[in-house]
Amino acid sequence: MIGESVKIAVVGLGTVGTGLIRTLQENRATIRARCGVDLELRSVCVRSLRKKRAVTLRPGILTTDRRAVLDDPQVDIVVELVGGTGAAAEIVMGALQRGKHVVTANKALLAERWTELFSLARRRGCGIQFEASVMAGVPVVRVLNEGLAGNAVESMLGVLNGTTNYILTRIAADGMDYRAALRQARARGICEADPRLDVQGVDAAYKLSILGSIALGQWLPPGSVHREGITHLEAKDIRYARELFSYHPKLLAIFKHKNRRVEARVHPAFVPVSHPLAAVVDEYNAVYITARPVGSIMLYGRGAGALSAASAVASDIIHLARAVSSGVSGRILTPVAFSGKAATPVPIEEVRSKYYMRFTVADRPGVLSRISGAFGQEGVSIESVYQPRVRGEGADIVMVTHEAQDGAVKRACGRLVRMRDIVRRSPAVVRIEEGEYAGRDH
Amino acid sequence: MIGESVKIAVVGLGTVGTGLIRTLQENRATIRARCGVDLELRSVCVRSLRKKRAVTLRPGILTTDRRAVLDDPQVDIVVELVGGTGAAAEIVMGALQRGKHVVTANKALLAERWTELFSLARRRGCGIQFEASVMAGVPVVRVLNEGLAGNAVESMLGVLNGTTNYILTRIAADGMDYRAALRQARARGICEADPRLDVQGVDAAYKLSILGSIALGQWLPPGSVHREGITHLEAKDIRYARELFSYHPKLLAIFKHKNRRVEARVHPAFVPVSHPLAAVVDEYNAVYITARPVGSIMLYGRGAGALSAASAVASDIIHLARAVSSGVSGRILTPVAFSGKAATPVPIEEVRSKYYMRFTVADRPGVLSRISGAFGQEGVSIESVYQPRVRGEGADIVMVTHEAQDGAVKRACGRLVRMRDIVRRSPAVVRIEEGEYAGRDH
Repeated sequence: MIGESVKIAVVGLGTVGTGLIRTLQENRATIRARCGVDLELRSVCVRSLRKKRAVTLRPGILTTDRRAVLDDPQVDIVVELVGGTGAAAEIVMGALQRGKHVVTANKALLAERWTELFSLARRRGCGIQFEASVMAGVPVVRVLNEGLAGNAVESMLGVLNGTTNYILTRIAADGMDYRAALRQARARGICEADPRLDVQGVDAAYKLSILGSIALGQWLPPGSVHREGITHLEAKDIRYARELFSYHPKLLAIFKHKNRRVEARVHPAFVPVSHPLAAVVDEYNAVYITARPVGSIMLYGRGAGALSAASAVASDIIHLARAVSSGVSGRILTPVAFSGKAATPVPIEEVRSKYYMRFTVADRPGVLSRISGAFGQEGVSIESVYQPRVRGEGADIVMVTHEAQDGAVKRACGRLVRMRDIVRRSPAVVRIEEGEYAGRDH
Repeated sequence: MIGESVKIAVVGLGTVGTGLIRTLQENRATIRARCGVDLELRSVCVRSLRKKRAVTLRPGILTTDRRAVLDDPQVDIVVELVGGTGAAAEIVMGALQRGKHVVTANKALLAERWTELFSLARRRGCGIQFEASVMAGVPVVRVLNEGLAGNAVESMLGVLNGTTNYILTRIAADGMDYRAALRQARARGICEADPRLDVQGVDAAYKLSILGSIALGQWLPPGSVHREGITHLEAKDIRYARELFSYHPKLLAIFKHKNRRVEARVHPAFVPVSHPLAAVVDEYNAVYITARPVGSIMLYGRGAGALSAASAVASDIIHLARAVSSGVSGRILTPVAFSGKAATPVPIEEVRSKYYMRFTVADRPGVLSRISGAFGQEGVSIESVYQPRVRGEGADIVMVTHEAQDGAVKRACGRLVRMRDIVRRSPAVVRIEEGEYAGRDH
């Protein structure tokens, strides 16, 4: 097969598919040099032949016959850009069953059916590449799978959803309110079709499931990722956290793995302004990985968008094409290690963290001592307390705890809520993630 | 060959070699899962058998006979950790000539003999992996070669030398002077044996040569990289740039490639405090890459140190071991594309940039108009001017230009130096690199 062209079929011609075909056309010479062979686009499967397309294709390339594409013995690599877990699953499984390699950008499909997909790929000796599924063109999948191949990953802190990061940046930097920031994100075209997938952390949980599964070498089911969205985060707390404690708000996807104990959670969190993740603003994404022996590294970039995703899909195609052209096709290509067992993260109540909290209380003597007493009874110790301003009907008390167990903090908050004479409403609670990083002590 | 072990020989057992062997021992199970085979350490070549070692090796592994290691037909992969361009060249070339794959961390050897090494590797069908040569465990080589394989790289801004970044951080953040900061860097053990390689930009130029050569697909000789060190940068200018214009100092390694025009240079530069590179402090490294179609991505991490480098070397070994075990050994493995011709960057005089400048002038009327006149005559336009403080014998004038050609700025400074009645000493001149990044407008 060496020296011949490698033949690819693309299923789905939306913005990513269009960007991909343009990339393959524009960077043809570079790609040939890197692959050692020519890539030949053999078919592009779409739903309608009549729609106007933003790319020029040779006659006969466009088709609506998905089965014919899968059955074409000439096709080496099938690129699934349909999305969702319905037709996409049939395409991916169908291609693997026929011994074809697969490139997919489909985070939901991968996260939901990880073990099944990689088992099938292994049985058939095929590769599945999925760089675009997390952080689009920022090559975090390849970095975990290959660049850090000799490492044990101990933690990952990810800003994996661009929409929520954009919203939080607008609230924190421009003082915008949540509704206005969400409207602006929609106007900018960076939301999922259903923005609830963004703001409730579903998108980030899928991505964390994929990164965690690679790091663990076993499936981390998306349903096992503890998930809280940003809809309950108040602008007031973002302001207090910034002004009183120098924290920035992020929707963090957190993975930790130490002594066979796995944590996997997506929730709003405050990070120190000097943390490299705090500089990740607007719709940008980043992941801060700590591993043995490498230490800490961070990858940063635009984690969404047609061109960024097209870059990732192109790199996956080139990766597989190299293998096909050097004759390894038909043997195991996927570097994803996995066991059949799914990982089970510890319940959120057992997770330890620092906490930011705000209470609205009656403005009278002895309140602070009763509040700190409630925390003391649950073994939660307080690092600092402020009473930033007094209002007509009550005062805000803002505090940061030392590291404490989530369950203990919840129990302490339960005690407070029962103190009806002094506590006016449920406290605002946000976890704090500090970690180790360069410049922490400056 | 599938299912058997892959056999490696390590030449050089300093801190990186020791860290590597520990990593292979500690992460053995993970590595086997990722390689599909066992790695067998067959020999470790050292200069003295009597020296005490910090790792436990099976009897018979240690040897001083370099030739026997190269001639051992069982060895698949030779890991060169000797350094320098003497013995290291013999080891690397000798291994390739014998059809063995090579892993090296040797930036000087790669940068100086790029075309020769990769030509030989291609002729012999062998791979050379060199992730540790730039930014140690931060997998920038793999990201350029594979993660961005479908991209055209348009620019790279790198903080590639940890020592100088540490020194500049101490000066900028702690107000330390240069000598004290250098002493502290030496005490911390993060300098090269000869710190001139760090502070004069030699180390960064080697690394830029390697990254540029990958991006271009042709050799970018280290001697063609324009190079200025940090020894002339004054604390006063770092303070002015911060206070007046919100800039941070960096020793930047800059590569640009547009319309067949290549720029390659290492020099001090000011970047906006909101640029992601400004958050890269202490001895950390980062590279900010802009490419089509991916956009901008940044990689960040500890770019030096035995464990970080060991991580990179381990990933290279795993990469090659996968290829060996799947039977591709003996065909082209290196994804580095190259032509025989060396690249020729444009002369520094033709490079365009913004400039920070400080003049010490006589404190009398008309001075500013004569200075701006000199710039006007060379077509250099000024963006802003400050006269921060008046001294007994003269005043500082601090200015920032719009983008201008380096040659024109130099000619304008020449005009000023000849105005002996008003300009008291040669101006301080520092380039400014702003670029496009998220959050620029906040």
